[in-house]
Amino acid sequence: MGESLTESRTETTLPAPCGQRGTESGKTAGAPERRGPIGTQRDGGAAPAEGHEAVVLLERARAEVDPVLRAALGSLPGPMRRIALYHFGWEQSDGSPAEGGSGKAIRPALVLAAAAALGGPEARAGAARAAAAVELVHNFTLLHDDVMDRDATRRHRPTAWTVFGDADAILAGDTLQALALRLLAQDPHPASPAAARLADCVIELCAGQHADTALERCAPAEVTLDGVLAMAEAKTGALLGSACAIGGLYAGASDEEVAALDAFGREAGLAFQLIDDVIGIWGDPSRTGKPVGADLAARKKSLPVVAAFASGTPAAAELAGLYARPGEKEDLDHIALTVERAGGRDWAQGQAADRMARAMQQLARAVPDPEAAGGLLALLEFVTRRTS
Amino acid sequence: MGESLTESRTETTLPAPCGQRGTESGKTAGAPERRGPIGTQRDGGAAPAEGHEAVVLLERARAEVDPVLRAALGSLPGPMRRIALYHFGWEQSDGSPAEGGSGKAIRPALVLAAAAALGGPEARAGAARAAAAVELVHNFTLLHDDVMDRDATRRHRPTAWTVFGDADAILAGDTLQALALRLLAQDPHPASPAAARLADCVIELCAGQHADTALERCAPAEVTLDGVLAMAEAKTGALLGSACAIGGLYAGASDEEVAALDAFGREAGLAFQLIDDVIGIWGDPSRTGKPVGADLAARKKSLPVVAAFASGTPAAAELAGLYARPGEKEDLDHIALTVERAGGRDWAQGQAADRMARAMQQLARAVPDPEAAGGLLALLEFVTRRTS
Repeated sequence: MGESLTESRTETTLPAPCGQRGTESGKTAGAPERRGPIGTQRDGGAAPAEGHEAVVLLERARAEVDPVLRAALGSLPGPMRRIALYHFGWEQSDGSPAEGGSGKAIRPALVLAAAAALGGPEARAGAARAAAAVELVHNFTLLHDDVMDRDATRRHRPTAWTVFGDADAILAGDTLQALALRLLAQDPHPASPAAARLADCVIELCAGQHADTALERCAPAEVTLDGVLAMAEAKTGALLGSACAIGGLYAGASDEEVAALDAFGREAGLAFQLIDDVIGIWGDPSRTGKPVGADLAARKKSLPVVAAFASGTPAAAELAGLYARPGEKEDLDHIALTVERAGGRDWAQGQAADRMARAMQQLARAVPDPEAAGGLLALLEFVTRRTS
Repeated sequence: MGESLTESRTETTLPAPCGQRGTESGKTAGAPERRGPIGTQRDGGAAPAEGHEAVVLLERARAEVDPVLRAALGSLPGPMRRIALYHFGWEQSDGSPAEGGSGKAIRPALVLAAAAALGGPEARAGAARAAAAVELVHNFTLLHDDVMDRDATRRHRPTAWTVFGDADAILAGDTLQALALRLLAQDPHPASPAAARLADCVIELCAGQHADTALERCAPAEVTLDGVLAMAEAKTGALLGSACAIGGLYAGASDEEVAALDAFGREAGLAFQLIDDVIGIWGDPSRTGKPVGADLAARKKSLPVVAAFASGTPAAAELAGLYARPGEKEDLDHIALTVERAGGRDWAQGQAADRMARAMQQLARAVPDPEAAGGLLALLEFVTRRTS
């Protein structure tokens, strides 16, 4: 995780996830292997009673950022506006109004909480455009990832490419990226390095998505833990880190504080991904206690599975045999047990706890005053669902 | 063309190219209908003897901008860097070096010529990053357009998506857009409105590409001249206008000068497109005098064809019958003659001359000193090939 503190992330090359070259032709259509980004996770997040402070922060972020987002989307040319408003859940595909459903605003909430933590209410108020820009970048990547991954459903609705076609979904994503960077470029209260940092983050997100698709084409035995962790950091951690860092920039934070905020968000993103992957195999104990199964049914190389493969145990060898026979759903309980026997569950839970601890260390470095750090801590607990 | 002078182009909604809604599913794969962007046109542009000043300007732009581009691309994560270097013609698909072929640098040359026209050599030197950013935006749109249009060849090589797959070509395009905006955001000599203007331009380019694909799905009789001209302005004129405007911004130009430079580039882009479409049907008289044919064989709704359809003449009705029978290549000479009899050729040549005249008027407004305007004028003549 040494890279997570460096400033020039685009110089970093992700470790190859496996021995394969990255130049193969595209992935087979229809594979339902996409990781769930934060805010769209399986169980809908913690109930209000479990994380009241975070829920209040998320609702407040939504209320502050939505008007900025709606104004920005409203400025787009007609067809692109229509696709964007559909994707955000604000319009039906025929242009009639729809009821919300545009996600939990975790990334905007992190921008605003980081600005508030280091700069108080004034910095928070000044960071609304930046928070909207981060949310636009997130949604640009969702539009494109859904095209690439052939995912047909997002936020309980048909994905944009299934409704408007691949070309228009790609163009709408391109448009949202440009809109995000325009919002920062036109900010009347700019934090000058914020635009470059957000552009850097986009470059890292693309590298992460590339690594994810490359990884799914690898044989399981070829996937390395370093490779899959680096992919998860680029794909999930980078934008959470950038959200926190950009919030810090809007509060006039020092380089060291910004670096610590970035590392906090990255560790939080990795902790989220580890826990989400555990729930994807064994279910959420607080909810059902039963395996969810979809990740294993798709033979997804999630973090616990890769750890199990890498364990060198007899169970790892058995798992390789099971993963080589796709589509046999009746084996799911047995595969889950095999991943557990190979140590995949313990590793993932231990890693998640470790990442949480590192996130809290970075938070203490960035925001030593515990009261000021409360908002960011509540959001960390929310995304990792360790709220009770 | 009133819109071409306005500042807030993203507020402008393109006229629907036909009565159709924009929500249909994607275009059929394989249709070879893509318009040739400037720099990749059919006949390779004017020979040096015909436009010596422009050739010198283009070579100089290439020499000044290539090092900036190579450094920017070199900073990308490995897989994205490899795709970008392949697309630019600087590497083979296996990563070994390749010989150039990255286009004629018309857009960077316009940035630098506009900066020089209004700010002299110092402004020109300071605009190299902006020129590279404009070239990156152009190449991001090429990568994505090739995916959407299923174009298999670009600059005499297989397109990136045919080599690396759709997903990686989309990601490489996303990366180049971010890199362009990062270059401007990190410019040590920034012209502050330049980044917002470039982002605005991307939004317009996407709307133009959307209109182009929507137009190709329309029945010919439904396509309007206003619609197809607006599409050509958004798809071809916008980036040429932005290149000139951004060059002006780097020279500290006034709002009025910047608006005139933008209008100059837009008119030049439309003149180019009109002439390119004429050559696409009747060939370049200075070269062969024979029809090229590919546009008609693909039943492309190019500007002369749409003008012919809109003429209300008996020849227009005959043309509708001919366009309704795709694939009969033996009719090409007859179709070309029918477009001509319906007035499509005269209209396009008259429009092109009109756009050239308007471009020169705008240039005189932006740069009253003829000597200072010489570079931009030479580039206008080059792109419209009226160099003798």
